[in-house]
Amino acid sequence: MNDIDYMNLALTLAESAEGRTSPNPMVGAVIVKNQQIIGMGAHLKAGTEHAEIHALNMAGSAAHGSTMYVTLEPCNHFGKTPPCTQRIIQEGVRKVYIATLDPNPLVSGRGVAALQEAGIEVVVGLLAEKSMKMNEIFNKYVVSKIPYIVLKAAITLDGKIASKSGDSKWITNELSRNKVHQLRNQLDAILVGVNTVSYDDPMLTTRLGEGGRNPIRVILDSHLTIQEDAQVLDTDIAPTLIICTEQRDHEKEQRLLERGIQIIIAKSQDGQVDLRDCLIQLGARGITSILVEGGSRTHGSFLRQQLFDKLVLFIAPKIIGGNDAISVFGGSSFPSMKQAIELKNIETRHYGEDLCIIGYPNYITDVQEG
Amino acid sequence: MNDIDYMNLALTLAESAEGRTSPNPMVGAVIVKNQQIIGMGAHLKAGTEHAEIHALNMAGSAAHGSTMYVTLEPCNHFGKTPPCTQRIIQEGVRKVYIATLDPNPLVSGRGVAALQEAGIEVVVGLLAEKSMKMNEIFNKYVVSKIPYIVLKAAITLDGKIASKSGDSKWITNELSRNKVHQLRNQLDAILVGVNTVSYDDPMLTTRLGEGGRNPIRVILDSHLTIQEDAQVLDTDIAPTLIICTEQRDHEKEQRLLERGIQIIIAKSQDGQVDLRDCLIQLGARGITSILVEGGSRTHGSFLRQQLFDKLVLFIAPKIIGGNDAISVFGGSSFPSMKQAIELKNIETRHYGEDLCIIGYPNYITDVQEG
Repeated sequence: MNDIDYMNLALTLAESAEGRTSPNPMVGAVIVKNQQIIGMGAHLKAGTEHAEIHALNMAGSAAHGSTMYVTLEPCNHFGKTPPCTQRIIQEGVRKVYIATLDPNPLVSGRGVAALQEAGIEVVVGLLAEKSMKMNEIFNKYVVSKIPYIVLKAAITLDGKIASKSGDSKWITNELSRNKVHQLRNQLDAILVGVNTVSYDDPMLTTRLGEGGRNPIRVILDSHLTIQEDAQVLDTDIAPTLIICTEQRDHEKEQRLLERGIQIIIAKSQDGQVDLRDCLIQLGARGITSILVEGGSRTHGSFLRQQLFDKLVLFIAPKIIGGNDAISVFGGSSFPSMKQAIELKNIETRHYGEDLCIIGYPNYITDVQEG
Repeated sequence: MNDIDYMNLALTLAESAEGRTSPNPMVGAVIVKNQQIIGMGAHLKAGTEHAEIHALNMAGSAAHGSTMYVTLEPCNHFGKTPPCTQRIIQEGVRKVYIATLDPNPLVSGRGVAALQEAGIEVVVGLLAEKSMKMNEIFNKYVVSKIPYIVLKAAITLDGKIASKSGDSKWITNELSRNKVHQLRNQLDAILVGVNTVSYDDPMLTTRLGEGGRNPIRVILDSHLTIQEDAQVLDTDIAPTLIICTEQRDHEKEQRLLERGIQIIIAKSQDGQVDLRDCLIQLGARGITSILVEGGSRTHGSFLRQQLFDKLVLFIAPKIIGGNDAISVFGGSSFPSMKQAIELKNIETRHYGEDLCIIGYPNYITDVQEG
């Protein structure tokens, strides 16, 4: 094994805790001495030991003179746990490979400086791209305090999420639907518009064979029109948070609060929830990532306001046809093809006959006509 | 090399004439003796020698006692050329491997019978599926006399072929657009609705670096509303055929006829061209295959009437958004997801960042509700 192999192993360890470390990043660490792995660790949950500490504990006194491979810059401050740099120095580690610096500008570089001041050799940038991608949620949230938004939809080949009657059962196959449950298991919250609640009455829970964690269910409902018998209001299963505007029904709000539903009053924009304000408020509550699951109008709003960070599109090889079936992004389209949002870093996966396209929107702030 | 290798070679020879053999099928032949290839041939153009004859000519007297691999059942009748079976028997071929029988029910099996009666050993079915797929156009046309319909569209990820203003330049990239020109080069005709002519003023010609053949341009134009300065009416480049109904403008018809435009009067259905009648008339003129290139309304009609045989969808990783942008299949949608047309035998290709999905509609004649 070489340096790349060790760092890859550290990345794999880190990823094993996907969906469990929020609001912290995923981090893995491997300690090597005389070409033998003597310590391994991953950060499993906020408030518990960092990856470096688990690895150093495993290595014990053998850590003296060793090389550490860690996927993110070790912390140099007292948070819920003491600084990792201090323990690394204390154990006599000789050299540290770091995939990426901590993106938090208040932290970034300080961990490296502390190690170097103690005479430890530090190399930054090994498999940096892979590490950045793994922590794309943390990297956005820690800097902006706005949740990372993954927009997910299941569509026909002709871009529809439902027939004109609203029928959407089932566009995609079981493999694709299972993958959606894996996504729910990894993100902090699921968000849908109230129309989706009234059409589909979804539970918005994580249903995986081997268990899974339920994210917070967030409903965009400007005027608090949600039916009070909606399944999503059953807070015994998972917490529910409704976002409305000042134009809400106060009595209904009271009844919902009594049932344990959380309610956020967001600024309004043209009578609707102001999405940006909504995301700021959700971020302030420690929600680092949201899976936007529809419907058409909600998707359209996130598109036009350039608010989603990642798109996960399941495409079934079916054609429903028509201008009247419901398009995946509702509302108004961009006037010309030049203004269409392009996706970059596209990945294509196959789930049986379904196709899954994952990409990142390349937002353009200034469209040149001509 | 073994039997499969020889038949694969014969299939490759056959395919080299793709788009040039209409209304005949593509056929290839390989002759082997003492594990040596002694003859090869392909059918290049209707009216010229069949593949078997080319291969036998190459083999000369060595054909005596040889084995022939031919992708389609040799003919046993006098067409534009004498029967191949007669020549195979005459040259003393000992054994013949045939990929598939001739699908024409008037011919099917007679070639095999003639060879067997002459004491030649015949094996049918080697790489049959591959051979069937290669001649999917011929296989439909020879039986039904209705052209094989390939519906092609370039769409955004959200299933749109143009913005609400009609802008469609350019959804897909140059690699995809070049592939469309290869399709035009292979089919007998291109068909579009008159709306596409008025929006895009396309030339509908084959533009390939290494030349190419222009298919007949067919315009669906029920009321003969085409602009007389449309580029597609320039018959110096390629022939043009307009399909209208009895409700046409006779004076305009006269002017178009004088310019060399062909005109077909089709039955009408709800004031529009009856597509089925239109295809029967085009088939009667020897058009074996048509590339339907839009627009939205035309695609929708072919979908609802279950008239296309193959779908070629180029998908660009872009989002135009909106319910108001133009959907790839216009008109009314199917009422429920159960009625959506599924594609089978799907193939996925990548042209740069664009995706190309090729599939065959699995039409259902009787939808069970419930």
